[in-house]
Order: sequence, then C-alpha cells, then structure tokens
Amino acid sequence: AIFALLQSHRDESSSPVSNTQTQKPLQGRTVTLTAGPTREAVDPVRYISNHSSGKMGYALAEAARDAGARVNLISGPVQIQAPEGVNLVQVNSACDMLEASLQHLPDTDIFIAAAAVADYRPDNAADQKMKKQPGQNELVLRLVQNPDIVATIARHEQRPFTVGFAAETQDVENYAISKLMRKNLDMIIANDVSRSDIGFNSDQNAVTVLWKQAGSADPATPDIGRYQPDQASKTTLARQLITQISDHFLHSNT
Amino acid sequence: AIFALLQSHRDESSSPVSNTQTQKPLQGRTVTLTAGPTREAVDPVRYISNHSSGKMGYALAEAARDAGARVNLISGPVQIQAPEGVNLVQVNSACDMLEASLQHLPDTDIFIAAAAVADYRPDNAADQKMKKQPGQNELVLRLVQNPDIVATIARHEQRPFTVGFAAETQDVENYAISKLMRKNLDMIIANDVSRSDIGFNSDQNAVTVLWKQAGSADPATPDIGRYQPDQASKTTLARQLITQISDHFLHSNT
Repeated sequence: AIFALLQSHRDESSSPVSNTQTQKPLQGRTVTLTAGPTREAVDPVRYISNHSSGKMGYALAEAARDAGARVNLISGPVQIQAPEGVNLVQVNSACDMLEASLQHLPDTDIFIAAAAVADYRPDNAADQKMKKQPGQNELVLRLVQNPDIVATIARHEQRPFTVGFAAETQDVENYAISKLMRKNLDMIIANDVSRSDIGFNSDQNAVTVLWKQAGSADPATPDIGRYQPDQASKTTLARQLITQISDHFLHSNT
Repeated sequence: AIFALLQSHRDESSSPVSNTQTQKPLQGRTVTLTAGPTREAVDPVRYISNHSSGKMGYALAEAARDAGARVNLISGPVQIQAPEGVNLVQVNSACDMLEASLQHLPDTDIFIAAAAVADYRPDNAADQKMKKQPGQNELVLRLVQNPDIVATIARHEQRPFTVGFAAETQDVENYAISKLMRKNLDMIIANDVSRSDIGFNSDQNAVTVLWKQAGSADPATPDIGRYQPDQASKTTLARQLITQISDHFLHSNT
C-alpha cells in the first residue's frame, strides 16, 4: 500500500523525472526547522547538552531551500555552516528555541523539529560558578522539564504541517509511533541512535518515516504509513525526506 | 620585587633578545598539558560539559613545542586542530583524562593543567537513553565528585613541575591563591571567566600568574609572586606564559 501511495504521487508529477531542484514543489511556502542540540545552563560555565551535530537538520534546510521554500533554520550551537539563502536564527536553550519557533509560526507552512532538544534543564541556573565544596562528594542537580517544542507547535491553533523526529536507542519504531500519536504530529522520522555508524555526528543516516494513514476505520488507532529509504548520506536522505514531506503536505492541503 | 625577579631572569639569558623560538629553553624536556572541556555522560546521548574551547591549552602546547619541548596534549573534545608535532591524546571524561595524565607522568618534566575539567559527573551513566516520563516534571541527577587531576599529579611521588589554572567568576585572585596552596601547585594561572570579552571561546585572554615565593619566612603562609601580562591574544599570551613557566621550572631544578 505504501508503494502504491508513493507511486501515485510520482504519477501526478508534471515531469517524468521527480527532482525537487527543477520542480520546486515548495515554491511560495515557508519551512521552519529546528536543528542541533540545545544547551541548558547549569551555571555561567557549565551546561547540559547532547551529541547532536545539526547535520541532519542543516541538510533538511538545504533540501527545503532547493525545493523552493523560504527557510527559517532555528539552530542550537553547532560547528557547521548554515546553507546559503536560509534565515539562520541562533539559540541556546530549549526555551529560546520554542520562543523563536512561535515567532515564526504565523508564516510557517511546514514545521520540522530536527533539533535534539534537552528534555530537562537545571531548575535554577546559578549566577555564579558553583564551587566544589571540600568533602562534598555528592551533588544533586534538580532538573525541570523543558517545554515540548514540537508538541506545542502541533497543538497550536495556527498549527502548520508538523514533522517530528524520534532519536531512540531501543524499540525505535514503537516509541516513534507513540510519539506521533501523543504529540499530534503529521509525520515522524525515527532513527536508532544506538548505532554508532549512523546518526548524530555521522555523515550517514538510516531512518524510518511514519505517518497516520488517512481513511483508517478508527481514528484513535489509525493505520500507520511507513517509508524506509536506504541508508545514505544525510544530504541524499534529506532530499528524499523533503520530497516525502512535501508530497504529504501538498496532499493534506488539497 | 616581581619586576626585579623577571629582570634577573632576563639578564641570565645568553642572548639580549629573549625568544623561546630561538632559545629553546625546554629543549630535551617533556611538557604534558591537558586542554579543552571534559564531557561527562548522563546517558548515551546526553552529557554535562562546559564552554572551554581549548584555545588557551592548544596555544600553550604550541608555545611549549616552539620552546623546544616534546609535548603531550591530552585534550577533551574541541573543534580546533592540534599544533603539528605534538602528541595529541583525545579523551572525553575527567576519569579518562586523569588516566592519560598518569600514563605520561614518568616522562613529564612540566605538567600544565589547562583543561576545564568537570568537578562532578553523573553517578551512574545510564546505558539507555533516559525517557521523559509523562507527568514527571522534575528529575534529580545525582552527581559524584570527579578526581582532581592537577592535585593528583602535584601530590604524586613522581611529581613534575605542576602548573594549574583557576577559572573563576568572582574574587579571582583569592580563590586562585587558595587553590595554589591547597593543591600543592608550583604556579597557577588565574583568569576571570565572568568577562565575556576574554577567556573560553574568545581569542583574547587576560590572566594573572601566581606562585609561592621561595625563601618566605613562614612556609605555611609564603609570599606570593605575581606576574600580570597585558591582555593579549591567546597565542601571544601563551608564549609569555611558557617563558614564565620555563624560567620558574629551570630555577626550581638548579
């Protein structure tokens, strides 16, 4: 059924060669992406972060630009250059990333949450550097939950077409489907970050795209659509994902 | 008195131009440096780290090489290239950094601890990614104290000439002197990391070098020697600091 679905999209295209660079399916649309890690301050010198390199999100931003979209790239601290022609918005914390995402919401047609957002942040970031206390062998760091950026966007009244990511180390597809449903997403891109050959700092990635099938008998337990491109460079994969996303987005709008 | 001390060192030099590149005062010596931040794993994707760029430590490694030393550069994860001709040892956690430092100790004449080592690490890094629990608004992260690398080296029976750093946000010089004494260091390089124009990610730095004066009446409360070069690029400063360190090292040995 998935193959038939993809096939039908391809048949609708005006040219026999499906190519986002010549077709520009997202011309006139605005894609807002989040990318990279967030950094949550413990004190002025320390922070909690994660191993996201931003490569996947930046590759998606480039592919969205090549598909004709205006692109807002809301990025945590990374070591890579933003693609030319995208609007780079640099942030640190999850709270800052949510604020920037909401600011761009009124103009956003497609929201892709590729950032690896910290689930928790230190309760009160100290203004002064925490001093190690002699004899204090243990320290307790109280963390509070960060806002859930992609869920906030997906439940917003000006809700754009919303795509999430699920970076998991176990039971990847089940967690991803649960996240797709719970957060009211249109699509989710799942990857297994326990594999060291792909994901995070790697240039390669292997993902599974999942979505709720339209026309399921019971909307509470819809059939799940599934697309699994071959493992590839993040650049190649990003083009395939943007094609998938724009196909679903354009169908959802017509 | 400080000026006189510096002057006397300069007078001893064989050439009227004091230049580490031509004089090679550390020829035949081995300098082991730590540099960069450490990363302490919370789980397979998250970590606690700090804003150290490694620039100061890498500049010191380069200056030590130019002064004729063999250089071991034990470095946490940074985004800069190691100087040519130094032995780069890449580590992540404080425990790994201590292990590498101890391995190089038998050959080390001067140990310079420029890394921004995490004081604490998560008690038990989880093998699987921590899942955000619905309704769990708070999380407690139990941290345990990391080994004190520079103090361990300075108290070791094969103790090299040991130089520490003090990155502070308040009362910088008092904290630095206390650290110099408590950790049994030969010298300490203090800087104020609350200033955003210098330190950490900046290319500029301003530091104060402090040491115990030889021949103080009471060894428990020795007079403190003090050298404060002008704010400068980390490269320029590194050359001045290596000159200072090698002067004191050579005096301590003769």
